[in-house]
Amino acid sequence: MSGKIKYELLKKEGRARLGKLITNYGVCDTPMFMPVGTQATVKTLSPEELKDMNCGVILANTYHLWLRPGEDVVSHAGGLHKFMNYDGPILTDSGGFQVFSLAKNKKKDIIEEGVRFKSHLDGTNLLLTPEKSIEIQNKLDSDIAMSFDECIPYPSTYDYTKRSTERTLRWAERGKKVHNNPNQSLFGIVQGGEYEDLRKFSAEETVKMDFDGYSIGGTSVGETKDTMYKMIDYAVKYLPEDKPRYLMGVGDPIDLLEGVARGIDMFDCVLPTRLARHGNVFTRHGRINIRNAKYKEDFTPIEDCDCYCCKHYTKAYVRHLIVANETFGARLLSIHNIRFLVRLMEEIRESIKDGKFIEYKEEFIKQYESK
Amino acid sequence: MSGKIKYELLKKEGRARLGKLITNYGVCDTPMFMPVGTQATVKTLSPEELKDMNCGVILANTYHLWLRPGEDVVSHAGGLHKFMNYDGPILTDSGGFQVFSLAKNKKKDIIEEGVRFKSHLDGTNLLLTPEKSIEIQNKLDSDIAMSFDECIPYPSTYDYTKRSTERTLRWAERGKKVHNNPNQSLFGIVQGGEYEDLRKFSAEETVKMDFDGYSIGGTSVGETKDTMYKMIDYAVKYLPEDKPRYLMGVGDPIDLLEGVARGIDMFDCVLPTRLARHGNVFTRHGRINIRNAKYKEDFTPIEDCDCYCCKHYTKAYVRHLIVANETFGARLLSIHNIRFLVRLMEEIRESIKDGKFIEYKEEFIKQYESK
Repeated sequence: MSGKIKYELLKKEGRARLGKLITNYGVCDTPMFMPVGTQATVKTLSPEELKDMNCGVILANTYHLWLRPGEDVVSHAGGLHKFMNYDGPILTDSGGFQVFSLAKNKKKDIIEEGVRFKSHLDGTNLLLTPEKSIEIQNKLDSDIAMSFDECIPYPSTYDYTKRSTERTLRWAERGKKVHNNPNQSLFGIVQGGEYEDLRKFSAEETVKMDFDGYSIGGTSVGETKDTMYKMIDYAVKYLPEDKPRYLMGVGDPIDLLEGVARGIDMFDCVLPTRLARHGNVFTRHGRINIRNAKYKEDFTPIEDCDCYCCKHYTKAYVRHLIVANETFGARLLSIHNIRFLVRLMEEIRESIKDGKFIEYKEEFIKQYESK
Repeated sequence: MSGKIKYELLKKEGRARLGKLITNYGVCDTPMFMPVGTQATVKTLSPEELKDMNCGVILANTYHLWLRPGEDVVSHAGGLHKFMNYDGPILTDSGGFQVFSLAKNKKKDIIEEGVRFKSHLDGTNLLLTPEKSIEIQNKLDSDIAMSFDECIPYPSTYDYTKRSTERTLRWAERGKKVHNNPNQSLFGIVQGGEYEDLRKFSAEETVKMDFDGYSIGGTSVGETKDTMYKMIDYAVKYLPEDKPRYLMGVGDPIDLLEGVARGIDMFDCVLPTRLARHGNVFTRHGRINIRNAKYKEDFTPIEDCDCYCCKHYTKAYVRHLIVANETFGARLLSIHNIRFLVRLMEEIRESIKDGKFIEYKEEFIKQYESK
């Protein structure tokens, strides 16, 4: 097929949604977790490994690719899929989050036009606008593009949050106007901080613009989990049932379960790959650090898991690789950690299908927190 | 099978030898190139990738594994093959070369007993002896172990070289006495520096001890290529035809051809993987650096090559990964560079079979130096 994505809602249990996302690069079951390939590569991994793990959509970062190698290089390569040899669906973020978190010295100047800041690579003065973000994403030719928004710091005053949320709406409108890639879908982002009425306002106004999907933004910037869940609750009820909902930057297993319980369909996070590089490992009984001396002669796999790492390697070997700073260790743990989240989502989908999501969620959390 | 390796000489063209090495983990055609898995991992790569590249024997470093994770951990895991999940043949070096090159502050004290030095990791005082080296290798359970030797610095005086060469012979004898792994073969190492009579002496005395194979040592420590070729010439004529000959630490394509022309069967080197991490790439027309700006929009593969990198990725993408410090770039170039050398050896074997090695060698060198 070609054209925009389609979302089909198959079943609900409470607010949890079982569905599918039909894209130009295959059909993905939702809810789903999407690994992050910041610089057009999911760190250490090959596209084939991602496929083997049953990954659907992967992310790439507009900000990073804009700076390096440049959107024109990717475009001349035939788009991101060809450039990075990934024939599954790709989502690009707007670059906004990176501008706010990576700008040199964290200094940036938010103006109506966009955001002025200095490159984290070489200090060059840059201006990212809603139009520019969409133009870059059009050229990257991802399957799903995101509107340019301000990720509001937490905490922020009501007044600041209101002004920022209104500006994000104007930015969304401006971006939508210049979007011109017929095979790329465009998502709107709901802001509004921690304020119920602003979340409602942002959600309703964003939905009026009729995007192909909706993201709930600003939920993963340092607040407590309860605040995050509240932010989702405030926004999600105003989102249409027939469009996918995406919670950005969230990858903790418990948060995935809580997000699904609140009606979220898509999640992404660098967590599984970043943790892996530091030897941190997801297990059914909580997170462990493989560097721990107790694994030195532990010749069993990390756990009962179907990933390449657990099928072929012991904790002792992975520990050795991580302690010795060998990349293959990060690669093996990236595989395990991503597969852990992808498998969690598979089980979540199965449980919704069987009408047993609430039980599954409680059981999983009980075990995960039993360490 | 179990027990020692066997070598079969199939055909000669001049001094170049076509043969096979029969090991407990499969039959390898020679001459062959062996990639280096220093810390029980060929940097960035999986065992499956090595198999796909048609790698035969791989190396692991006794010194590194002695310090980390310790030979007992590997032994308790069931040996190196099980520990690292590699079911092809493995060769371990003696640790000598690393002691000489990696000892903290390069300080070491060579005594009759062995070598005293400080760990490059934490400065601990260590003593590596011929007996200890063999004991570690016995526990690592590699298929081929190497005798502990002194890799003589270049240049060295005749007197120093003579004394060192004699000591290396005594060390070889001591190591052989304690070697007690019936499934592990043991190679002797010919030293003698740049001195013809000392090479002859070392070769004859080493051969008298009746090892399972012979290595020509000290040829890759900074001398000119002509000196290296001379050192090989001096030694190789005293080695028996029915045992494999191994040139340590050599991986430059021209050197492989010159080594084969002089009767060498086995080569190893960190060069392909080390070059890869710096963006340096072997091609039929010489080495290139993929960071070069001219590859920014070069959407063709590195060259006409059957490796995973060349089959799926462009220079522009690999350049982007290397410039952006993405591990997947080092992984792709490691695959290409190793496959380049393995394929070179495949072609060399084919040419010897056809009685056309000299032509092949000249043709290859002409093209390689035509850049």
